[in-house]
Amino acid sequence: MIIEKLALVGTGLIGGSFALALKQAGAVREVLGVGRNPASLDAALERGLIDRAADWAEAGQADCILLALPVGETAAVLQNLAPYLKPGAIVTDTGSTKANVIAAARAALADRFADFVPGHPIAGSEQSGPGAARADLYQGRKVVLTPQADTRADAVATVTALWQAAGAQVETLEAALHDRVFAAVSHLPHLAAFALVDELAQRADGDTFFRFAASGFRDFTRIAGSSPEMWRDIALANREAVLAELDAYMAALQTVRAAVSTQDAAALLEIFSRARAVRNHWQTKREPPAG
Amino acid sequence: MIIEKLALVGTGLIGGSFALALKQAGAVREVLGVGRNPASLDAALERGLIDRAADWAEAGQADCILLALPVGETAAVLQNLAPYLKPGAIVTDTGSTKANVIAAARAALADRFADFVPGHPIAGSEQSGPGAARADLYQGRKVVLTPQADTRADAVATVTALWQAAGAQVETLEAALHDRVFAAVSHLPHLAAFALVDELAQRADGDTFFRFAASGFRDFTRIAGSSPEMWRDIALANREAVLAELDAYMAALQTVRAAVSTQDAAALLEIFSRARAVRNHWQTKREPPAG
Repeated sequence: MIIEKLALVGTGLIGGSFALALKQAGAVREVLGVGRNPASLDAALERGLIDRAADWAEAGQADCILLALPVGETAAVLQNLAPYLKPGAIVTDTGSTKANVIAAARAALADRFADFVPGHPIAGSEQSGPGAARADLYQGRKVVLTPQADTRADAVATVTALWQAAGAQVETLEAALHDRVFAAVSHLPHLAAFALVDELAQRADGDTFFRFAASGFRDFTRIAGSSPEMWRDIALANREAVLAELDAYMAALQTVRAAVSTQDAAALLEIFSRARAVRNHWQTKREPPAG
Repeated sequence: MIIEKLALVGTGLIGGSFALALKQAGAVREVLGVGRNPASLDAALERGLIDRAADWAEAGQADCILLALPVGETAAVLQNLAPYLKPGAIVTDTGSTKANVIAAARAALADRFADFVPGHPIAGSEQSGPGAARADLYQGRKVVLTPQADTRADAVATVTALWQAAGAQVETLEAALHDRVFAAVSHLPHLAAFALVDELAQRADGDTFFRFAASGFRDFTRIAGSSPEMWRDIALANREAVLAELDAYMAALQTVRAAVSTQDAAALLEIFSRARAVRNHWQTKREPPAG
């Protein structure tokens, strides 16, 4: 048992899977659920993600409160929760962007900010909601924590232990670097996929194009099936880093364009070969061969 | 039996799978293989993709000669083959671009150009070579033919029947439209994936970025693992259409950039929502639910 009582604010895929994993690991005794949507709380209860629904006052008495909701709602939730936080309670989150969440937490929690551990599990699914939660969602996945200089060290240790009990590998990054890294490897690809599909869709003869699209297109655009609301919020929450990544990407596309335009076969081969080597090396490291 | 004798120029994944499928369907009696690489011909023989290796003179006596090699080699191969083509022999190809292949065929085949049926099977794999060939590669896949006004109608009918015997659905497109469509749904995504990965790889701290890349990045960049030589050739062979698609894509990215920059949440939500709706509609039509 790492903690007695966990409170989830948001009982969907991310929060629900965390609770399921901790229960299965025997790392928590009781799980409370807080949310605006009664149907979602009922579903979470029915699936055993939470033991009971709770209000802000009860949630504040938990040992750890996990925020698992759109990053844009962080400030309002922490303002609701702040008056009720018992001494020693730890608050942590699961947002895809960290600098803006940290700023919101610092403003809302004031002198309790030291109890806030900013976190980001690198896991998810196109599914969402309580029905999609599963105990093994975090198995072998990375969770990035971005503690600040004034974050309580023992709060970081407890949150680390909880994620490890859920099967995850915990890493620490500086918050600004976190935001730059995820702007590059996650936020930009999503925006790029949305942009590509929308551009094709707007053409008068777009149907002909989609009719011949095959598996390369399917994989390249899979993430364009993601939640529009979530990605709008992330793009705006991580605005500076996202703009920098868009500029770097468009510059890289301009380089490719120049090589095609001038028929510079050697330059194209160099770019494509370097990209393939790095991509294959990454894939191999990521999925080491069995045995 | 649709034809007696098939000759493959190129006995790798594309040509070998065509031969296997036709043999299995009883659509051809004998398959000859032509290629510069003796090891590849031996492997094709050993795997039963071909019945025997042949030279240009023998290949020219086949009822149908299938070119399954990089589009850049089309002109040279057709020049080798032209003097030996028996009356009534049909030549067809499998190249990813069509206008340049048609121009090369017209020049090389001269008064036999009417026997050339330009084709493009929408199938493939990251694997290549004779070892990757399989009889079901074309099962349910599309094959696009782009016959010209002077192409022999009965040659088109025979090539259509062969692809259908291999399990494919045959469609016809005007060659220029074919090249525009595949520039958009195939060539551009490949170039965009190569550009993204290479840009990250060139950063001094690139390792940190790749370390946190997850499944969205994996799928978005899967095609950056494709053959650099093949994609260099395709980008140059379909240069005009590829440049137009790069420009359209960069314009779409600029629109997204402007919305992020001005914090235009409504514009972002509109683009992302439209893209998701179209992407999900396409995926559903492509993979109809079972039952």
